[in-house]
Amino acid sequence: MKKVAVIMGSDSDLPVVKKATDILAEFSVPFEVRVLSAHRTPVEAAEFARSARELGFGVMICAAGMAAHLAGAFAANCSLPIIGIPVKSKYLDGVDALLSTVQMPTGMPVATVAIDGAANAALLSIQMLAIADEDLSRKYDEYRKKATAKVLEKDIAIQKEFAN
Amino acid sequence: MKKVAVIMGSDSDLPVVKKATDILAEFSVPFEVRVLSAHRTPVEAAEFARSARELGFGVMICAAGMAAHLAGAFAANCSLPIIGIPVKSKYLDGVDALLSTVQMPTGMPVATVAIDGAANAALLSIQMLAIADEDLSRKYDEYRKKATAKVLEKDIAIQKEFAN
Amino acid sequence: MKKVAVIMGSDSDLPVVKKATDILAEFSVPFEVRVLSAHRTPVEAAEFARSARELGFGVMICAAGMAAHLAGAFAANCSLPIIGIPVKSKYLDGVDALLSTVQMPTGMPVATVAIDGAANAALLSIQMLAIADEDLSRKYDEYRKKATAKVLEKDIAIQKEFAN
Amino acid sequence: MKKVAVIMGSDSDLPVVKKATDILAEFSVPFEVRVLSAHRTPVEAAEFARSARELGFGVMICAAGMAAHLAGAFAANCSLPIIGIPVKSKYLDGVDALLSTVQMPTGMPVATVAIDGAANAALLSIQMLAIADEDLSRKYDEYRKKATAKVLEKDIAIQKEFAN
Amino acid sequence: MKKVAVIMGSDSDLPVVKKATDILAEFSVPFEVRVLSAHRTPVEAAEFARSARELGFGVMICAAGMAAHLAGAFAANCSLPIIGIPVKSKYLDGVDALLSTVQMPTGMPVATVAIDGAANAALLSIQMLAIADEDLSRKYDEYRKKATAKVLEKDIAIQKEFAN
Amino acid sequence: MKKVAVIMGSDSDLPVVKKATDILAEFSVPFEVRVLSAHRTPVEAAEFARSARELGFGVMICAAGMAAHLAGAFAANCSLPIIGIPVKSKYLDGVDALLSTVQMPTGMPVATVAIDGAANAALLSIQMLAIADEDLSRKYDEYRKKATAKVLEKDIAIQKEFAN
Amino acid sequence: MKKVAVIMGSDSDLPVVKKATDILAEFSVPFEVRVLSAHRTPVEAAEFARSARELGFGVMICAAGMAAHLAGAFAANCSLPIIGIPVKSKYLDGVDALLSTVQMPTGMPVATVAIDGAANAALLSIQMLAIADEDLSRKYDEYRKKATAKVLEKDIAIQKEFAN
Amino acid sequence: MKKVAVIMGSDSDLPVVKKATDILAEFSVPFEVRVLSAHRTPVEAAEFARSARELGFGVMICAAGMAAHLAGAFAANCSLPIIGIPVKSKYLDGVDALLSTVQMPTGMPVATVAIDGAANAALLSIQMLAIADEDLSRKYDEYRKKATAKVLEKDIAIQKEFAN
Repeated sequence: MKKVAVIMGSDSDLPVVKKATDILAEFSVPFEVRVLSAHRTPVEAAEFARSARELGFGVMICAAGMAAHLAGAFAANCSLPIIGIPVKSKYLDGVDALLSTVQMPTGMPVATVAIDGAANAALLSIQMLAIADEDLSRKYDEYRKKATAKVLEKDIAIQKEFAN
Repeated sequence: MKKVAVIMGSDSDLPVVKKATDILAEFSVPFEVRVLSAHRTPVEAAEFARSARELGFGVMICAAGMAAHLAGAFAANCSLPIIGIPVKSKYLDGVDALLSTVQMPTGMPVATVAIDGAANAALLSIQMLAIADEDLSRKYDEYRKKATAKVLEKDIAIQKEFAN
Repeated sequence: MKKVAVIMGSDSDLPVVKKATDILAEFSVPFEVRVLSAHRTPVEAAEFARSARELGFGVMICAAGMAAHLAGAFAANCSLPIIGIPVKSKYLDGVDALLSTVQMPTGMPVATVAIDGAANAALLSIQMLAIADEDLSRKYDEYRKKATAKVLEKDIAIQKEFAN
Repeated sequence: MKKVAVIMGSDSDLPVVKKATDILAEFSVPFEVRVLSAHRTPVEAAEFARSARELGFGVMICAAGMAAHLAGAFAANCSLPIIGIPVKSKYLDGVDALLSTVQMPTGMPVATVAIDGAANAALLSIQMLAIADEDLSRKYDEYRKKATAKVLEKDIAIQKEFAN
Repeated sequence: MKKVAVIMGSDSDLPVVKKATDILAEFSVPFEVRVLSAHRTPVEAAEFARSARELGFGVMICAAGMAAHLAGAFAANCSLPIIGIPVKSKYLDGVDALLSTVQMPTGMPVATVAIDGAANAALLSIQMLAIADEDLSRKYDEYRKKATAKVLEKDIAIQKEFAN
Repeated sequence: MKKVAVIMGSDSDLPVVKKATDILAEFSVPFEVRVLSAHRTPVEAAEFARSARELGFGVMICAAGMAAHLAGAFAANCSLPIIGIPVKSKYLDGVDALLSTVQMPTGMPVATVAIDGAANAALLSIQMLAIADEDLSRKYDEYRKKATAKVLEKDIAIQKEFAN
Repeated sequence: MKKVAVIMGSDSDLPVVKKATDILAEFSVPFEVRVLSAHRTPVEAAEFARSARELGFGVMICAAGMAAHLAGAFAANCSLPIIGIPVKSKYLDGVDALLSTVQMPTGMPVATVAIDGAANAALLSIQMLAIADEDLSRKYDEYRKKATAKVLEKDIAIQKEFAN
Repeated sequence: MKKVAVIMGSDSDLPVVKKATDILAEFSVPFEVRVLSAHRTPVEAAEFARSARELGFGVMICAAGMAAHLAGAFAANCSLPIIGIPVKSKYLDGVDALLSTVQMPTGMPVATVAIDGAANAALLSIQMLAIADEDLSRKYDEYRKKATAKVLEKDIAIQKEFAN
C-alpha cells in the first residue's frame, strides 16, 4: 500500500498531528512522520516533496499554523494530493492558517480540512487511498458504521434521560 | 478509470463549475455533472451519494454557496473522498460557504479548495485518481510543467520590459 | 398541544441545549430530546424530520456547531418551522456555526437565534405555538412581566447603591 | 387567518421586502406593510408592536440594515414571534445588521434569516401560521414540491448538456 | 452642572461601568446610575430618555452587550448626546456590540467608544460638559497632564532598566 | 457660539465630509474645514489641535480612512471632544478605519460614528454644543421631528400601496 | 548602490507592482523586476532568493495574492530584508493575502505593507537603503517635504472654498 | 553601528517587547528602549522621532496595541525605516492593532510584523542594518543556520519516535 506522509511545520504541532497518526495506525495504513518547515528547512522540505512519489508515498498531510505555507510548499514540489491542516496558534483562532492553506492559486490545490482537523485529514487520506483499494474501502465503511452506532446509542440514552 | 462526479447545488453555480469540467475534459477523465440540492432534493442527493461507488465514481466534487451543506450531505452518505468548492454568493464574499464547507466535524472530512476554486477541485480529483494511475500521474506532471513554463516565459518578457 | 423536538448534533451540546429544555419544562410544553447528526446519522435524522408532523410535533429546535448542517438538514426534510441554535465549538467563537445556520438559501428558512442561544430558541418555539393558543400566550406574557420586574428591581437597587 | 405584518425600517428596504410580500400574496396569507423606524418613529413602532396581537396579527417580520434594532424593538414590545431580516446596506455586507438582529439577549428571541433573506422570512411566517392550520400546511408542502421538481428538471437538463 | 446618566442594559455590566462612575466621581461631575434594558424595560427606558433633559442631564452614557440596542434606543428618544459603550459578552469578543452601537443610521448618532471603554466614555462626557465650562476644562487638562507625567516617569525608569 | 472644526486627512475625503458641512450650514453652526494629515502634516495638525480651544472651537470632527490616526492625533493634542468618522477606502470596507478610530486606549476618547457617517458626526457635534444652548437644542428637536414626520408619511404611502 | 528586486507571483499583479517601480525609478534606485511564483516556479524562485545578495541586491519586494507565500518563500531562502505586498484578488478583499504575508513565524520576518501598498513597499526599500546612504536619505526627505507641501496647498484651497 | 530604537506605547507591552531586546542583545546590536505614547506623550514622541537619525539610530521599532498609532506617529516624523509590532490587547485578538499598523496611507510605510511578533521585528531591524554590514550579515546567516539545524534535529527525533 502507498504510504501517507504526515509533516508538521514545528514539533509544537505534535499534539494536533497525533490525532492523525492514531487513526492511520488504527487503519494499519503505513505512514511516516516528519518535522519540516517551509521557512526554516526549505531545502529539505522541497527535496522530500520532490521524491515523495518515488519513496512510495501516496498522500501528503501537512500541518502548520500562522502564515501556514507548508502545504503550499509541498503542493509546489509534489504532484501527489496534499492535505492541509490549518493549526490554531496563539492568535486569530487559526483563521490566518486556514486562509493561508485553503486560498491556493489556480493550479496548486491543497485539500484543506477544518482548523486543527487532524483526524479528518487522516480519514481523508484513507479515503483517497481507498479509491483503488476495496479492502481499505470496506474498513472505512465499517469505521463509519461504528461512529453511526455510537450516536444512535447516545440518542437512546438521551431519550431515556428526558423521558423521566 | 473511475469517474468524477461534479455536483452543483444550483444551476446558477454552472459558470464556476465549468472551470472544473473543462479541466476534467482536458485530462480525458470521465465525469458526470449533476444539479442536486442538499435542501431542495435531499432524497435524490442522498441516493446518488449512497450509490456513487457502485456507479463507478471515484471522487465527488460538490459546489455550493451560502450555508453550503452539499459537500457535507455527500460526505454523510458516501465514503468516497468529497471535494468541496465554496461558491461566492451575493453576500459575505463566500466566507459563509467556506466555513460551512471546511469546518466539518470529526469523522466527516471534506477536502476544501479556495472560494470558487473549481479548477483546483478538478486538479485535486485528478491527483487523487492518479495515486494509483501512473499514466494519469504522468499527464498531470506534464500539465504542471507547462504551467511552470508559462510563468518562466512571462518572467523573461517582464525582465525585458523593465530592462529598457 | 403540539410537541417541540429538541435535537442536538452531538451529546456534547447538552449543556447548551439544557437551557432550552428547562424553559420548555417550566412552560409545561411537551417536548422530546434527540441526538441526531446530519453527518453521522443522516438516515435517522431525515426519517425523524419527515415524520415529525405526524408524530405530533409543531416546532423543531436543532443545535449544532462548526459547519452546522443539522438545522438545514431538518429544513430540507420537514415543513415545520425549524429553529437553529449555532453552538460555539472550540474555534472561531461560533461564527462558523452561525453562518452555516443562518445563511440558508431561498426556500429553506431556518429561524436562527444567537450563538448558544438555547433559552431564546425555547422561547421562540413557545411564541410560535402561542400564535394559536391563548393560554400559552398569556403564560408567555406573564413570564416576560417577571423578567421586566426583575430588571426594575435591579434598577432600584443600583440607584440606591450609587445614591450614597 | 392571523395576519402577517411586514415592517421595514426605511422605505429604501422595499426592494428587499418585496420578495416577502410576493410570497405572502402567492399563499393568500393576509398581510400589512409598514414603514416604521426603531429610531425615527420609536413611539409609533412601539404602539404598533404592543397592539399587534389585538389587531389580528400572528407574526411580525422586521427588515432593517446597519445597527438593525427594528426587530429587537418589536421583540421588546410584542410577544408574537418576530422574524428579523438583516438588510445589507452600503458597508460591511450586512454583517452589522446580521449581528444586530441575531445576537439578542436571553428572553428576547428574534428568528433571524439570511442577509436580505426576505423570501425565507415570508416562508418562515407561513410555516409558523401553518403549525395549527392544516390547509396552509398542505399548500406549503405543494410549494416545496414544485421547488424540488424545478431542481430535478434542471438536473436532467444539465446531465443532457454534458452527456454530449 | 448638568448631570451625566450612566445606564447599563444589565447589572452584569456593572464591573465595566464602574470605571466610568469612578472617573465621574473623581471629577466631581454629578451622575446617576440606572439599570434599564432596551428589550426588557422598553417603556421605562423610553420614559427616562424622553425626560432626561428636563431632569437636568447633559449627557447619556449607555453600556450594553450583544445586539446592543440600548444606546440606539436612547438616541431614538432623547436629543442629548448619547455615548455608547459596546460591552464584550461571552462570544464574538464584543464585535456584535460594537457594530450594533456604532453603525447607527443617519439622523441618530451614537458617540461610540472602544469595547468595554467605560473610562473613555466618562472622559468623553466630561469633555462634552467642558465645552461650555472653563473650570471643568481646566480640571480635564490637569488630569491629562498627570497621565502624561506618568508615562514620562515610566520612560525614564525603562531607559534606566535597559541602560545597565 | 463655539465653532466646529471639520478636518479631513485627505481632500479625497471631501465627498464624505460634505454631508457634515451641509448639516452644520443648515443649522447655522459656524465651522471651518481643513485638510490636515496625521502623517503628512503632523506639525500643522498638532499645532491646530493645540490651539483649537483658544481659536474658539468647541468640537473637532476628524475624517480619515485606512489606518485612520487623524482623530487619535487630535485627541492626543486637544482636550475638546473629538468626533471620528472612519472613512471607507478602497479595501476592507472601512473596517480598518473603524478599528483605528474607535479602539482608542484609556485616557484618549474618540467619539466614533458609523463608517462614512459624516451626517451623524455633524449632528453629534450639534448635540454637544446644544447641551448648554437652549436655542440650538430646540432647533435640533425640530430637525428630528421633521425626520419623524417624513417616515410617517412614507408609512402612510406604503400602507396605501399595499392596501390595493 | 544595492539593487532592489521587485518580484510578483503572477504577471496579473503588474498594475499593482507598477506603483513600486515608478517610485524606484523616480529615486534612480537600480531595480530588477521578475515574475516568479512560490508555487509554479519554486526552483527558480528559491535559486534567485539564494543568490540575491551576491547578485548585488539589498532588498527584495514580493507581491502576491490569495494564500500569498511568495514573500515567505523568499524569506526562507534569503537573508536580505523581504518586503511583502499583500495583493487583493477577486475574493476576501486581500485579507487572505495580508494574513498569509504578515503572520510569519518567529525567525522569518516579512516587512508587510498595506494591501496593494506597492508605493509604500518601494518607499520602505528606499528607507532601508538610505540607512547607510546619506544622499538617498536626503532625497527621501525632500520627497516627503513635497508630499507635505501638497497637503498644505490643498488645505489652503479647501479653507478658501468653505470661507465663501 | 547605527542603533535600534525599541519604543513601546505602554510599559505593559514590555513582556512582548522583551523578545526583541533579547535578540538585539544576542547580536550585540546597540539599542535603546523607550516608553512613549502617540497619545499621552505626543510631543516627546514626535521630538524623539525627529531627532532619531541625528542621535545615531538606524531603525525604529514601535510596539503598540488597540488603535495602534505609535508606528504611524513615528513614520510621520522620521524618515528612518519604522517597524511596527501590533500588540494583542484584551479584545479582538490584536486585529485592531494589526490593521492600525499595516494599513498606512501612501507615502508613510510601516514595516509590519505579526501580532506580538517582537522577535521578528528585531531580526528585521538586523536585516536592515546588515544590508550594508557584511559582518552583521554573516552573523545573521549563522543564526539562521542554527535555527535550521534545530528543526532538522527535531525531525530526526520525531522520525525515530514514530519508527518504533
